[in-house]
Amino acid sequence: MSTSYAPVSEHLDDVEAARAEGRRKMDWALQHMPILTALREEYEAEKPFAGQTIGMAMHVEAKTANLVELLADGGAEVAITGCNPLSTHDDVSAALDAHENISSYAVRGVDDEDYYAAIHSVVAHEPTITVDDGMDMVKVVHEEYPELIETIVGGCEETTTGVHRLRAMDEDGALEYPIFAVNDTPMKRLFDNIHGTGESSLATIAMTTNLSWASKNVVVAGYGYCGKGVAKKAAGQNANVIVTEVEPRRALEAHMEGYEVLPMAEAAEKADVILTTTGNRDVVTREHFEQMKDGVLLANAGHFDIEVNLDDLDDLAVDRYEARDGVEAFEMDDGRRLNVIAEGRLVNLAAPIALGHPAEVMDQSFGVQAVCVRELVDNGDEYDAGVHDVPDELDRRVAEIKLDAEGVDHDELTDEQREYMGSWQHGT
Amino acid sequence: MSTSYAPVSEHLDDVEAARAEGRRKMDWALQHMPILTALREEYEAEKPFAGQTIGMAMHVEAKTANLVELLADGGAEVAITGCNPLSTHDDVSAALDAHENISSYAVRGVDDEDYYAAIHSVVAHEPTITVDDGMDMVKVVHEEYPELIETIVGGCEETTTGVHRLRAMDEDGALEYPIFAVNDTPMKRLFDNIHGTGESSLATIAMTTNLSWASKNVVVAGYGYCGKGVAKKAAGQNANVIVTEVEPRRALEAHMEGYEVLPMAEAAEKADVILTTTGNRDVVTREHFEQMKDGVLLANAGHFDIEVNLDDLDDLAVDRYEARDGVEAFEMDDGRRLNVIAEGRLVNLAAPIALGHPAEVMDQSFGVQAVCVRELVDNGDEYDAGVHDVPDELDRRVAEIKLDAEGVDHDELTDEQREYMGSWQHGT
Amino acid sequence: MSTSYAPVSEHLDDVEAARAEGRRKMDWALQHMPILTALREEYEAEKPFAGQTIGMAMHVEAKTANLVELLADGGAEVAITGCNPLSTHDDVSAALDAHENISSYAVRGVDDEDYYAAIHSVVAHEPTITVDDGMDMVKVVHEEYPELIETIVGGCEETTTGVHRLRAMDEDGALEYPIFAVNDTPMKRLFDNIHGTGESSLATIAMTTNLSWASKNVVVAGYGYCGKGVAKKAAGQNANVIVTEVEPRRALEAHMEGYEVLPMAEAAEKADVILTTTGNRDVVTREHFEQMKDGVLLANAGHFDIEVNLDDLDDLAVDRYEARDGVEAFEMDDGRRLNVIAEGRLVNLAAPIALGHPAEVMDQSFGVQAVCVRELVDNGDEYDAGVHDVPDELDRRVAEIKLDAEGVDHDELTDEQREYMGSWQHGT
Amino acid sequence: MSTSYAPVSEHLDDVEAARAEGRRKMDWALQHMPILTALREEYEAEKPFAGQTIGMAMHVEAKTANLVELLADGGAEVAITGCNPLSTHDDVSAALDAHENISSYAVRGVDDEDYYAAIHSVVAHEPTITVDDGMDMVKVVHEEYPELIETIVGGCEETTTGVHRLRAMDEDGALEYPIFAVNDTPMKRLFDNIHGTGESSLATIAMTTNLSWASKNVVVAGYGYCGKGVAKKAAGQNANVIVTEVEPRRALEAHMEGYEVLPMAEAAEKADVILTTTGNRDVVTREHFEQMKDGVLLANAGHFDIEVNLDDLDDLAVDRYEARDGVEAFEMDDGRRLNVIAEGRLVNLAAPIALGHPAEVMDQSFGVQAVCVRELVDNGDEYDAGVHDVPDELDRRVAEIKLDAEGVDHDELTDEQREYMGSWQHGT
Repeated sequence: MSTSYAPVSEHLDDVEAARAEGRRKMDWALQHMPILTALREEYEAEKPFAGQTIGMAMHVEAKTANLVELLADGGAEVAITGCNPLSTHDDVSAALDAHENISSYAVRGVDDEDYYAAIHSVVAHEPTITVDDGMDMVKVVHEEYPELIETIVGGCEETTTGVHRLRAMDEDGALEYPIFAVNDTPMKRLFDNIHGTGESSLATIAMTTNLSWASKNVVVAGYGYCGKGVAKKAAGQNANVIVTEVEPRRALEAHMEGYEVLPMAEAAEKADVILTTTGNRDVVTREHFEQMKDGVLLANAGHFDIEVNLDDLDDLAVDRYEARDGVEAFEMDDGRRLNVIAEGRLVNLAAPIALGHPAEVMDQSFGVQAVCVRELVDNGDEYDAGVHDVPDELDRRVAEIKLDAEGVDHDELTDEQREYMGSWQHGT
Repeated sequence: MSTSYAPVSEHLDDVEAARAEGRRKMDWALQHMPILTALREEYEAEKPFAGQTIGMAMHVEAKTANLVELLADGGAEVAITGCNPLSTHDDVSAALDAHENISSYAVRGVDDEDYYAAIHSVVAHEPTITVDDGMDMVKVVHEEYPELIETIVGGCEETTTGVHRLRAMDEDGALEYPIFAVNDTPMKRLFDNIHGTGESSLATIAMTTNLSWASKNVVVAGYGYCGKGVAKKAAGQNANVIVTEVEPRRALEAHMEGYEVLPMAEAAEKADVILTTTGNRDVVTREHFEQMKDGVLLANAGHFDIEVNLDDLDDLAVDRYEARDGVEAFEMDDGRRLNVIAEGRLVNLAAPIALGHPAEVMDQSFGVQAVCVRELVDNGDEYDAGVHDVPDELDRRVAEIKLDAEGVDHDELTDEQREYMGSWQHGT
Repeated sequence: MSTSYAPVSEHLDDVEAARAEGRRKMDWALQHMPILTALREEYEAEKPFAGQTIGMAMHVEAKTANLVELLADGGAEVAITGCNPLSTHDDVSAALDAHENISSYAVRGVDDEDYYAAIHSVVAHEPTITVDDGMDMVKVVHEEYPELIETIVGGCEETTTGVHRLRAMDEDGALEYPIFAVNDTPMKRLFDNIHGTGESSLATIAMTTNLSWASKNVVVAGYGYCGKGVAKKAAGQNANVIVTEVEPRRALEAHMEGYEVLPMAEAAEKADVILTTTGNRDVVTREHFEQMKDGVLLANAGHFDIEVNLDDLDDLAVDRYEARDGVEAFEMDDGRRLNVIAEGRLVNLAAPIALGHPAEVMDQSFGVQAVCVRELVDNGDEYDAGVHDVPDELDRRVAEIKLDAEGVDHDELTDEQREYMGSWQHGT
Repeated sequence: MSTSYAPVSEHLDDVEAARAEGRRKMDWALQHMPILTALREEYEAEKPFAGQTIGMAMHVEAKTANLVELLADGGAEVAITGCNPLSTHDDVSAALDAHENISSYAVRGVDDEDYYAAIHSVVAHEPTITVDDGMDMVKVVHEEYPELIETIVGGCEETTTGVHRLRAMDEDGALEYPIFAVNDTPMKRLFDNIHGTGESSLATIAMTTNLSWASKNVVVAGYGYCGKGVAKKAAGQNANVIVTEVEPRRALEAHMEGYEVLPMAEAAEKADVILTTTGNRDVVTREHFEQMKDGVLLANAGHFDIEVNLDDLDDLAVDRYEARDGVEAFEMDDGRRLNVIAEGRLVNLAAPIALGHPAEVMDQSFGVQAVCVRELVDNGDEYDAGVHDVPDELDRRVAEIKLDAEGVDHDELTDEQREYMGSWQHGT
């Protein structure tokens, strides 16, 4: 298996054109990323990352690129590759690769071998900091390049799934450097997962299918932050939302919100659309496919393409064909067509027209990433190996930057109020 | 000025490929158009349109194409062209043109001269029925081919703007054959305008800009059915909706709904996005451009591209450039960038990624069109020249077809209830 | 049968206390009725109603009282009684009766004989104008006092049910003076029915039962304006709304809104609450009672107490008792308890704690009433006998008064825009 | 100061009537409390609380009473008093006092001296467990009866404010027995605070004032769980919600939800209604009163009556009078009337018509209370002195009981899924 892959610039026919287009995309996004804009001013002046090498595996598109460039402009050497073979924008990758401090190995649509080779090429830069969207970088370092761990300051992980796995790894005592669970901050969970995943998944599906949400039975599998976002935005467009869950309090939360809560075996029968957001495998399987209506849409807004079991579906199908760009129809022997969007991969990133999260939403998550990378550089030795919550003060600071940028003013506690909240000696 | 334009098949390089792709698009749409599917079965058997020639000027894309084919399969000869130079899908146009009963002259991006030449080519078929999306066909017939009027049975008009103008023409005594105001039916207004325009305009803008609705100040100009739809769906995605209106009861309606109501002069200052839905001209002009924020998005969900005054904007701009596919930035001398989406044309049709209304929504409007065309053929001599409301029974029948297709059952009045509702001699 | 009933002041023990309390209620309401406040200033100065006698049968409570007083202060002699035996506030009735130009015969809880006797007492004043909430006054005049019709200038009717019956009467050629269908104005339908009925019905039920809406299956019978209001406000409090309807387009409208639409026979099984808003009879009957869940709540937000068939329910019950103030439990032989709120009468008026519509909402309806009464006085001879729509200009004027009072500014059409909207000679 | 107060039965004129009415209220509530119903069956059989004495200070009304009776039926001796002088229902208190294992000292409207005397009477029973709604019981025990602490097994505290203070006390090292922070469980926060406080506060205000929410500027002070509930339910009734906050991420959360976020100094000017939910003091003060609109409503949905500074308001007022039951008007020298609802006390408990939280919502909180009390009895010695989170498994069990009772079925993780979620060795 190859462990080396050339930078994107060597894979493209017209690199200059790609760079220009990538830059144009980055410029547009940056217009709507006030937090990164504010931080860039600060980091360009201070160069806090001088001497650091940052290895990244992330969705390489315009918004991420503005974070990457911010880190590079702050003094770091950055090596990056994609974290999903279908989410890379080659033009943006090329624009990044043109930066003197950045090497980008991300190329859209690579096969598994090249995908992993690119990760190895990033690791070959000997990163002192890793920034992940699904812990690929952390995994490769731990399994194949343990010698690097000694000089690694720390890392950041942004996805629910990645953090989940890192915590499992941490519990096994297998995680050997400190990693900030960026995914778990209020700034990430409340905005990225709810508004970002919610809006972009639905808009991507609507624009891939030319269908409407009004009156649709939309089954949302999982009622975590992503599921809540999808449910809320679908209901906000007049869908009839049905929720499936395994945790009773989340099931009850969905029920109290006014949604119908059903086991998937019952929900699948009613579904016009099923959107998985669980981060788990085999959420939609053979027994469900067998009872779905003709024309149902199946999509995934979780992480990996294992939520809808495509092997089961392929087994059942007598025919499969592209019904529309980004939609594959699986035809059953009774004539029913089950339509899988974006191959069951993360729909707002992997569909042909997908753009990922909205820029403003990513600005918040990336703002947290940026201040966390700085925290690692400034105070990394204060953190033991293992998963760490992002210090509340950092997260809070990013919120303040955003509110300032939006011109939103808010109250401050008076001294009397602060004293009151901290005391307990007041009666009725 | 040319009065003849060749069918689309003569304008394309690879007609066969275009036809196949167009057919694939039509098939997908038809899967989600249960009303047309039900009617097709009936019309293919009965051939109610045998002997009729139908001249159409409509948005030529997959959903409309299924209506066109339904009419042709019902026995009519159909000639069609586009009603907007940017809304035609050449592949769908080619697929239609391949039908033995259909000639399609619609080609995307034609200039004004060819646009009108194509209308003339349609009229050259000597239609006995006209079906319009903006009264272009009616206008040309009346102004340039009055000799055709004697044999015309009647027409249908689907847009708010078209009906508005036809009524004005009718009041002037200038309308010389009967036309059904398809736009004014409950089936059209409640679903097409509210759900169709609302959802598709917002999804198109989101996927053109990669931006989010959450927390945005979205100014909706006009609170008619389209405006209500846009406002409702934007609020459903956590936008802060601001409405501008000229009719006091509509203004009050928006206010009571919880939206902020402002004159455009005040709304423009606050806007992150402005969406016009008025059907009127000069809704956003110089005085408004002067006070907008950097980065504002301007789009139109009304009919013509005159709601946002682009001449005023061009006058003010020191530079204009494509900021992103489908987005033109107008840069002011103070550095502010005002971003116009889809050239201020109907955004859900004219943006590069636009798909028009969702299929299910158009199914309802086209179902009404189809039964109205049949009514003209069956009972056209019962209607005087002028604009006619669609007979309530026809509209109601389309609703029943849709509910049946969706498996939605509902109550019927009992005889006692019917008697009660018709009587007045009951006390407290 | 008696045809005379004494004014309220003769029925109360402590008239002075009642008057003071009634006045306090009226003052509170008037604070939140900016339209009546604005009109009072105008009418007190101009005395447009001098010489007229106005006979009214309405819900006599604080808000109505401010309309009554406005008419009296505008110069009219007013005689009033209730339009529902349970909706009268004796204290407010007493406060009105204290006015030198007003005689009030409304007393809470009177029996049928006194109820009709009070109507006769009002008619004995020989009204020249009638103002009704359910056409009781019109009916008595036509059936028993036809000699008065010659001098009657006209009338106003405010309820859906009343207008429905008046139109039936009109079609029979039986209506002998002009009546404004106040109920049918945009100002009445959009605000009173949607916001007024919606909010006050739900708040009354919540405060009568101490129950929550979140997660409840709330069956709304009828999807007219009242039904839409109830459905919208219940969904806004996280109920799961189920709609029953007999008109297919309304059923489809509810379905497209995302609500479940079912026949009552299926809805009744799922219901936690059933709220009828149809204006029809026998909407909930024996076959439905038989399958309801234990603890279901049954309430009516339509007009008369015949929507829920209490005779059927009583037949089925093995016991009935007051479960709580305003709630009667009907116990079935299998132990299920079916709880009827406010005896199946209009819940926001007839429940023990009911307050009727919110003050601001009634202000709009009563504003229309007031300008309509003035229109009858000023231009009554221009209207033939029969039901008349409220002239659009009057309705519009009331909207303007309200927007002014709320400080809401809105746009005006420019001359160019007005010309554009009236013309049809503009191309694409 | 007196330290003894007689049970409620000795304070009432007609104890029997009060008991019957209280029992009727309790029966109604219990119909809608499926969790307590399920637990009662279990506890009556097992008598887990035999030998324990439970001292409670809670809002004594029908729902709480069902918890109290459940504990008594489970074998405990219970002594209870109110936690707010205005929230007690004497009839319910009397019904409890009639139970052989229960002594109730709660009497509505007692003065400060009797309020504290009643607490002392409860403590005189020498409780082994305390259950608090605001930590009054804990405070008195620690300050005045430290000798009891040795035999106290532990306690439960249900309010946000109480837990906040207990944590402060715990940090001071002053808390000497274990207390479950019932308030902090998902079951409490998500349902009681959001749905309970949200719905009941708004319904109480609507029915106290006869006003509507549609189009009102509703200022919600604080965007914690209570604030979120109030904001959501107000927006769901078409209010225009404005949020004030001191924590930047909560402020941002409200902003992203689409609400306007302002400092109170700006919000107060726009407000039609201000609802405080902060748990802090002096949220609305002189500087805010000075700029409010005539007719504004001021209410508190937090805990104590110190959120709206009534001293400041009284200083500014030239007159104050009861404008309506439950509403006191403060008249400013410029004629503006500022209306304070329920004396600024917890509006859904202290208003004259207030009923507290809905029964179903309290059922969830009380279900957690009940299983926590049992946990103290069964395993109390495993908990150190200090504030403890409710063990997740207990909270989860209550959710399961509720879902069962509502007939809501949900999915379970398969073994493969459980294994997957716990592992980290899966690649893309």
